[in-house]
Amino acid sequence: MNRALPRTSSGPNPLIVNVSARHCHLTQEAVEVLFGKGYQLSVHKWLYQEGQFAAKETITLIGPRSRVISNLRILGPCRTLNQIELAYTDSVALGFEIPLRASGNIKDTPGAMIMGPKGFFEMENGVIRALRHAHMHPDDAAFYGVKHGEKMKLKIGGPCALTLEEMLVRVDKSFKLEVHIDTDEGNACNLQPDTLCELVK
Amino acid sequence: MNRALPRTSSGPNPLIVNVSARHCHLTQEAVEVLFGKGYQLSVHKWLYQEGQFAAKETITLIGPRSRVISNLRILGPCRTLNQIELAYTDSVALGFEIPLRASGNIKDTPGAMIMGPKGFFEMENGVIRALRHAHMHPDDAAFYGVKHGEKMKLKIGGPCALTLEEMLVRVDKSFKLEVHIDTDEGNACNLQPDTLCELVK
Repeated sequence: MNRALPRTSSGPNPLIVNVSARHCHLTQEAVEVLFGKGYQLSVHKWLYQEGQFAAKETITLIGPRSRVISNLRILGPCRTLNQIELAYTDSVALGFEIPLRASGNIKDTPGAMIMGPKGFFEMENGVIRALRHAHMHPDDAAFYGVKHGEKMKLKIGGPCALTLEEMLVRVDKSFKLEVHIDTDEGNACNLQPDTLCELVK
Repeated sequence: MNRALPRTSSGPNPLIVNVSARHCHLTQEAVEVLFGKGYQLSVHKWLYQEGQFAAKETITLIGPRSRVISNLRILGPCRTLNQIELAYTDSVALGFEIPLRASGNIKDTPGAMIMGPKGFFEMENGVIRALRHAHMHPDDAAFYGVKHGEKMKLKIGGPCALTLEEMLVRVDKSFKLEVHIDTDEGNACNLQPDTLCELVK
């Protein structure tokens, strides 16, 4: 997570590519079940997108075959839904299949039991592999000539170079230009701070 | 491992793409230290390359920070060197860095302690991430217009499509056309038996 890739560009903003390790987003209700009544998440590290943070708090994820992932990081602030984002390597280790989804689109996805220091919370659904995506300010979208919901490609250089296709574009005035890929994708190309990356249509 | 991808092709042979899960190659000497004097590996499953097999035997890999990977599969038959091939996700879990190498090129690579039912064996070197590669018969190399040691690209389709570059070509009369990628690469694109793949220069 947070391997910034400064890149010379004629665009309005530098292209930042970050690897998202497995993590979860929780509702305040779930946080209170897991950590206690009235509990508030605390900031471990601010993320690149304004107001987003990795919380100090982590949870334990218990998969359907009783295998667990410990120290699963919560990202804050709280949202209106509970969602766990895993890489496929994680889901293989846990022993269950997860669907590829755009973040937030969790209808008909598998659930999981999660555990905190004060209790268990059963998620009915919300376990996904997040579709690789690019956050963009409207100025960036104009520069690249793309619209919200379109797909782009990310070319990543180096000794195990690859090009990721099907990169979902998400445009919002609150966004800063940043591509999020998961640990499988980041490890497939061994993304490093000095790896050259290019976003192309 | 062994997710065959039948593909209609005008080439002399169908393109097979298989995901190699982490595994090791051992010398007969190492096998005897780990499993006992005179021990012979037994066949769990024959692989696509002639004479190669996944052995019934597995070992435990002990990393430098005392983290372990259990049930690491041995591939047979025995070779003249000891080599462990991990994905980067595996090496992150173990807590150490491994270099990207063509199989067999293990000079100045890290070692590891491995354990079998009859003993420990210290590998002085040989822990690598194997460079993605394509095994080819000379007929296949002629069809694709490539030579041993050159690089190609593998285009992989589907909802998380990608193109792997820097795909090393290995040509030998004993080889059948087969691409080997690791679990990070296979999971990055969610390679399935019906995923369309294309090898291009």
